[in-house]
Amino acid sequence: MPDSPLTPKAAQTRATILATALQLFREDGYDRTTMRAVAKSAGVSLGSAYYYFASKEHLVQAFYDELLAEHETAVEAVLAKESGFAGRLRGSLEAWLDIAEPHHAFAAQFFRNAADPASPLSPFSAESAPARDGSIALMRRLLAGSDAKVSRRLETRLPELLWLLQMGIVLFWVYDGSPGQQRSRTLVRGVVPLVDRLVRMSRLPVLRGVVDDVLGLLDAIQGSAEG
Amino acid sequence: MPDSPLTPKAAQTRATILATALQLFREDGYDRTTMRAVAKSAGVSLGSAYYYFASKEHLVQAFYDELLAEHETAVEAVLAKESGFAGRLRGSLEAWLDIAEPHHAFAAQFFRNAADPASPLSPFSAESAPARDGSIALMRRLLAGSDAKVSRRLETRLPELLWLLQMGIVLFWVYDGSPGQQRSRTLVRGVVPLVDRLVRMSRLPVLRGVVDDVLGLLDAIQGSAEG
Repeated sequence: MPDSPLTPKAAQTRATILATALQLFREDGYDRTTMRAVAKSAGVSLGSAYYYFASKEHLVQAFYDELLAEHETAVEAVLAKESGFAGRLRGSLEAWLDIAEPHHAFAAQFFRNAADPASPLSPFSAESAPARDGSIALMRRLLAGSDAKVSRRLETRLPELLWLLQMGIVLFWVYDGSPGQQRSRTLVRGVVPLVDRLVRMSRLPVLRGVVDDVLGLLDAIQGSAEG
Repeated sequence: MPDSPLTPKAAQTRATILATALQLFREDGYDRTTMRAVAKSAGVSLGSAYYYFASKEHLVQAFYDELLAEHETAVEAVLAKESGFAGRLRGSLEAWLDIAEPHHAFAAQFFRNAADPASPLSPFSAESAPARDGSIALMRRLLAGSDAKVSRRLETRLPELLWLLQMGIVLFWVYDGSPGQQRSRTLVRGVVPLVDRLVRMSRLPVLRGVVDDVLGLLDAIQGSAEG
């Protein structure tokens, strides 16, 4: 797809293709859905479908981007009325659960592909970098304007750690079979005070070693991932 | 299968069926392998295969049991010569990576089923309770004879938390595409000193709240799982 902005008509066509694809993924499964079937259901030519989305993976990346955009809007509303770190974090995680809820059935069947870090659909892949960077930037904003007092060493890395926490909650949510994914909400309510407490304590001399261990571990794993 | 001990000949037949099944899972995939194909490759009747294993899931549970038995033997050797908590934990986790390494290709393709907590193959399922309880008991032995000084409140729950840590490492390992799963070994080497530090600090008054938060969270998640 060209980098220039789409005309309103083109944007509409693109949105129709994406919505159709998500519906087919949900109904027939991700693996069994072809680009041909997406084009046919959306009422566009196969060439047109490929013009907007070079592959099925690009459709999923577009879905991630859409979730992120919705999440950004919801988090801005939380940040505007809440300055406490715990309240902001809880609001942000609960907003994600709200936004993702309609897609839960799709996510559960689709996660088979996304859980493999070698897949372009993994949140850790190079292809997912824009959505990942956007989510980490959101955590940075959440932290920066809050009342949390964090050591300088931790401050630069904490948004990334909070994003990893969010990925852990997403993993839990994907497999959460409780009605309305209530267990995931219980998890968020329980995890936020714990994280808040740890962040507040991170400047205590007694916890400096723990902070160093955590950041060292993060470096080691990322270093070996690149190697 | 009857609860009475097997004759040596029956034990041999059972072992042959299990080894054949694991080979077929690896070669053809878990989903595509039928009990009929397992029986044929093992040179036994379909009735005989079902006599020893009521379903494909039972074959996987038997595989878990076998891994656990091997791990128990390896951990006993570690505990006999090491009394330091960190050394014992690292030895136990590294022993698991050694034992599981030959099965890595199988685990990666098979994990699609096991990652769903609703699956009988999940480490969290009722069907996996014997293997899970065995692994937690192993963590309890590791802790009890070590030099770790833990608060009484944490002591009873720590084996379960250490087992959850192990499940996290297993998840990482399943998707670890590095040669010989070296990244998982890096993770173990980095995580053990951190856990050791946190366990040592758990009796400090300043960390009592953190311990309470963690245990409360564990209760909340388990409670909502049963509800």
